[in-house]
Amino acid sequence: VAERGAAPAVRIIGFGCHPDHLTPEARAALASCDYVVAAAKSDDDRLLAVRAALCRQVGVELVAVPDPARDRTGPDGHGPRDYDGAVRDWHDARAEAWGAVLAERGGVAGFLVWGDPAFYDSTIRVVDRLGLSYDVVPGISAPQLLAARHRVVLHEVGRPVLFTTGRRLLADAVGHDNLVVMLDGSLTCRRLSGEWDIWWGANLGTSSERLVSGPLAAVLPEIESARAAAKADAGWVMDTYLVRRAS
Amino acid sequence: VAERGAAPAVRIIGFGCHPDHLTPEARAALASCDYVVAAAKSDDDRLLAVRAALCRQVGVELVAVPDPARDRTGPDGHGPRDYDGAVRDWHDARAEAWGAVLAERGGVAGFLVWGDPAFYDSTIRVVDRLGLSYDVVPGISAPQLLAARHRVVLHEVGRPVLFTTGRRLLADAVGHDNLVVMLDGSLTCRRLSGEWDIWWGANLGTSSERLVSGPLAAVLPEIESARAAAKADAGWVMDTYLVRRAS
Repeated sequence: VAERGAAPAVRIIGFGCHPDHLTPEARAALASCDYVVAAAKSDDDRLLAVRAALCRQVGVELVAVPDPARDRTGPDGHGPRDYDGAVRDWHDARAEAWGAVLAERGGVAGFLVWGDPAFYDSTIRVVDRLGLSYDVVPGISAPQLLAARHRVVLHEVGRPVLFTTGRRLLADAVGHDNLVVMLDGSLTCRRLSGEWDIWWGANLGTSSERLVSGPLAAVLPEIESARAAAKADAGWVMDTYLVRRAS
Repeated sequence: VAERGAAPAVRIIGFGCHPDHLTPEARAALASCDYVVAAAKSDDDRLLAVRAALCRQVGVELVAVPDPARDRTGPDGHGPRDYDGAVRDWHDARAEAWGAVLAERGGVAGFLVWGDPAFYDSTIRVVDRLGLSYDVVPGISAPQLLAARHRVVLHEVGRPVLFTTGRRLLADAVGHDNLVVMLDGSLTCRRLSGEWDIWWGANLGTSSERLVSGPLAAVLPEIESARAAAKADAGWVMDTYLVRRAS
């Protein structure tokens, strides 16, 4: 929005959940980059394809960098016991891979972040390790698109909302009655006790988008089949939901 | 992003914190409106002027509707004892005023929401009372711009973040170590106990923007003078901040 001193060496750009979310600010930031660095997680990375399409649209080269493996093993299907340590190792490995590309190429490197870099995304933390100047451009996040689709405010009047992860939901639901859940690979809301309402969405902003809302216990079967359908459509599924204790 | 059935009678459009935040989706939604309804809070409403500029840019008429008074009296300077009741009355009065304009004019009415309609904004709740079809378009919210300016993620790795209000901060800070505060007219963070870090911003996205970050106790004087300077510049001040318990 405002220019702040010299041009940064790295620009971290949130692009939202759909090409129609790319703000004029984000588009200008992307166009100012000499190239965009993107993590390639496999030969068939559909999230990479979305970034490639944006780069083609704006006329910026995309450099795909193989993504270091992340330790996700663990006794309970929810990742390693030393979660923070595993994440830190992964961030270090990403920083090393990205730093090598930036050192070789020089110029201004862009990173395109799905949604907003401010929520459950590691790009800021990884780039911060590189010791280069950088700036950040916000984008529309999945919880915001979820709220827009369901036409809800993410909290009740004057009340708080907790943004948390699937891994922490059951603990955080004690003492909270209004939570937005991200990074939940296994519909942890199935194990909530008590009466809840849910506003759920998968693959928001894509052609495989699915939306379900209602009393949690009643709509769970519908969510499970919608989630499977989204995955069948797209080859991947990312879901986000709001749960609120029924009054 | 996607067309859903017949054209709605009302479109609630988040426009972010700066004209460069207006997404292509929001611009198209705005252009599809026959007119935009905006609350006029006084003869010198600078928030109204921003909406008027957006409407001129896209070529849509703006209809200013005098905003009903809201009961903000109360024994402790934090509003009436029956907070929810006062808000409900205000929403009812707004719905009546807006409904009258929509009934007289017909067509497709737009509402331009500063930031995102999903956070601490009453537009969805008021429009929902009108019984008309409507849709919602998300926008970049102030906490997101705050995070981008300070180049931070709004939570620590895998941890939650509570979005709350100034009115509730002191109670919510018990048991939370990472909070985003909105709607705080009186820098309630001054009364937090314990050691905290703060990332603070006022009038984000405008020419009177101010940013301060650091250990709360150390930077409070700087925040107080920056807040006063933002208000002197703009004639109004709206601040948003992230507080995190120091580790």
